[in-house]
Amino acid sequence: MKKNVIVGQSGGPTAVINASLYGVVYEALNREDSFGTVYGMINGIEGFLNGKLMDMKPLDKSGELELIKTTPGSYLGSCRYKLPENLEDAVYPLLFQKFSDYKIGYFFYIGGNDSMDTVSKLSRYAQKTGSDIRFIGVPKTIDNDLILTDHTPGFPSAAKYVASTVREIVTDASVYDNKKSVTIVEIMGRHAGWLTAASALARKYKGDNPLFIYLPETNFSQEAFLKQIEKALRTTSNLVVCISEGIHDEHGKFVCEFANDVGVDNFGHKMLTGSGKYLENLVKERLGVKVRSIELNVCQRCSSSMLSGTDLKEAVASGAYGVKCALEGESGKMIALKRAAEDPYTVDYTTEDVTLICNQEKTVPTDWITKDGCDVTEAFIRYAQPLIQGEVSVPKENGLPRFAYRR
Amino acid sequence: MKKNVIVGQSGGPTAVINASLYGVVYEALNREDSFGTVYGMINGIEGFLNGKLMDMKPLDKSGELELIKTTPGSYLGSCRYKLPENLEDAVYPLLFQKFSDYKIGYFFYIGGNDSMDTVSKLSRYAQKTGSDIRFIGVPKTIDNDLILTDHTPGFPSAAKYVASTVREIVTDASVYDNKKSVTIVEIMGRHAGWLTAASALARKYKGDNPLFIYLPETNFSQEAFLKQIEKALRTTSNLVVCISEGIHDEHGKFVCEFANDVGVDNFGHKMLTGSGKYLENLVKERLGVKVRSIELNVCQRCSSSMLSGTDLKEAVASGAYGVKCALEGESGKMIALKRAAEDPYTVDYTTEDVTLICNQEKTVPTDWITKDGCDVTEAFIRYAQPLIQGEVSVPKENGLPRFAYRR
Repeated sequence: MKKNVIVGQSGGPTAVINASLYGVVYEALNREDSFGTVYGMINGIEGFLNGKLMDMKPLDKSGELELIKTTPGSYLGSCRYKLPENLEDAVYPLLFQKFSDYKIGYFFYIGGNDSMDTVSKLSRYAQKTGSDIRFIGVPKTIDNDLILTDHTPGFPSAAKYVASTVREIVTDASVYDNKKSVTIVEIMGRHAGWLTAASALARKYKGDNPLFIYLPETNFSQEAFLKQIEKALRTTSNLVVCISEGIHDEHGKFVCEFANDVGVDNFGHKMLTGSGKYLENLVKERLGVKVRSIELNVCQRCSSSMLSGTDLKEAVASGAYGVKCALEGESGKMIALKRAAEDPYTVDYTTEDVTLICNQEKTVPTDWITKDGCDVTEAFIRYAQPLIQGEVSVPKENGLPRFAYRR
Repeated sequence: MKKNVIVGQSGGPTAVINASLYGVVYEALNREDSFGTVYGMINGIEGFLNGKLMDMKPLDKSGELELIKTTPGSYLGSCRYKLPENLEDAVYPLLFQKFSDYKIGYFFYIGGNDSMDTVSKLSRYAQKTGSDIRFIGVPKTIDNDLILTDHTPGFPSAAKYVASTVREIVTDASVYDNKKSVTIVEIMGRHAGWLTAASALARKYKGDNPLFIYLPETNFSQEAFLKQIEKALRTTSNLVVCISEGIHDEHGKFVCEFANDVGVDNFGHKMLTGSGKYLENLVKERLGVKVRSIELNVCQRCSSSMLSGTDLKEAVASGAYGVKCALEGESGKMIALKRAAEDPYTVDYTTEDVTLICNQEKTVPTDWITKDGCDVTEAFIRYAQPLIQGEVSVPKENGLPRFAYRR
């Protein structure tokens, strides 16, 4: 008898997490000889535990599935539910009973580190109890911090958004080029600086802004930063600086924590602000120059305006490849991308042990950061450049992008 | 003898201010029988006073002029230089001597309220002294606050950016739809709420987010706001609220002033930051719910990813029309757009007295705001919808938008 398929999304969304959902669903629906019903979990494993799931086939018939491919956010809804470490916990038999109720034979989970942790635990529990359900992780995260894969779907589109937006901000900042100014751009990625590093791609020529890029992989010194800014302002009128939200001093204290120490509103409550805002005030106070800070915020993960064609293709292919692997009997694996060639850039899809991947973090290699700690090297540019290639035309309605949504 | 042309840009840039520059320059260069050299002022009237200008013709030959059309920022550089009220001031003969040195017969200034003030003063001084130099203002501002014109080039692209970005943020915010949350989006426009109102276009269906929209045209009550949020959260999990940066209480005190000290720029405007951040902290503290605030910041005026085709076309046409009007002898005028038909939408170009326009401010009509002060009516939607139509393909290089820049 044919077994059913279930797919879920977990953690923070990316611009192409729904493209991977499309890949899984499209591939599974096209193998009706092998699979029964294709279910989607609403709000990931947490929603599934509460019996929230949906049949995906009607979406294909209505054309909604095609639209999902270029819709940001998590179409199925997400969760941040961590399964217990102890596989003896009562939640496991409960979950597997539900899998059995729905005749699930194949489980796909699209997400980052924490989601891979879920796949690892479920596959280990299956192995322990002799269940033949196959568990496959499909990678996604704008942070690009998953190990054993060249990169992670979601990162290239976020990198393209960051690079193009920083290029636009640089253009905007140069408008009053007869007055000195500093613009600080705060970019996502608390522990891994991949996305902040992508701002280097914004440069139109050697020596162009952003002049300084600070990653969380190195220690940040406020005094050294002020000296660098002061020196650069002697030769550059409008300075643009990109910082990771997670920059920290040599003791590991986040720069935004310094802000929380000093920022008190007139009710005496702490004003919680970011690293960028803190540094804006610091530069204003210490250097007396015009400063602005810009937090790129959630647009980095949800903008559909700068989708990378390469990313979209790879996100769909990762989901589809996962279905093939599960059918061939693999379980406890994450789909990984291996760079097969540089010029032209190509990738191969493969699988890696999900238990090795979860709870690990891949940061930017130290030798891809310049010695002064305020830029990235050519090696990073060579790595990132192919990922942001290719344009995607998002369907439009009434002048705006048309998105799919659960009714 | 043929007189020369000079064109400048002033004030904050928009996504299409360079399209108007293109319109002026392209039209003037194509009338070689009427015009001599076409100059660009570097950093507006302030730079011109310091002898900073450039010949625009080489840009046409190199293809750079075509690229300028879709480049954000002010290609020529901008300034915030206010001419003295007193036309007896020594700066006026100095300026007109410089006009004479460069054999200027036609002066075009692309900008908003303050730039129209410059055009007004120069044309009045010309009239007073019998100068035959013609002064024409070409409108631009994302704020859409110029009177005597249906709308202002720059607003439609900014509105399209705001609407599409808010739609993306709404999608992102709905990802954890099993948990309650509030997302506050802060939008530019200190006295005029046009751009904040444009967030209403983001709704995909009746009752969709953003659920509340607060403009600076009405008074904002923190307590009423908290009550509205609390009530809405009973039926909507993930609430998205759009606010203007300039919302204020019934005494005219800006919401951001409750948290921040405010500086004053050299036109006497209050420098605003942080209404969203302030309300984020307020909601968190008072309602104990998950809150995020997002400041759309300068991307509203410099993103090239959401250019309105309608806007781009009108921005170019406004510049070109200005050249025709100057040639026909007009001076002391601003180019204005008159809506000629609704369905299909068309505009006519005309001129209005720049002295009537400068230092005035067009705000959103009160009857386009709902009685409870937290939404806009269908009349606004009908007004704004045609403006955001049409897509623009921006030239790309290496996966990113390709921009022109002064070397």
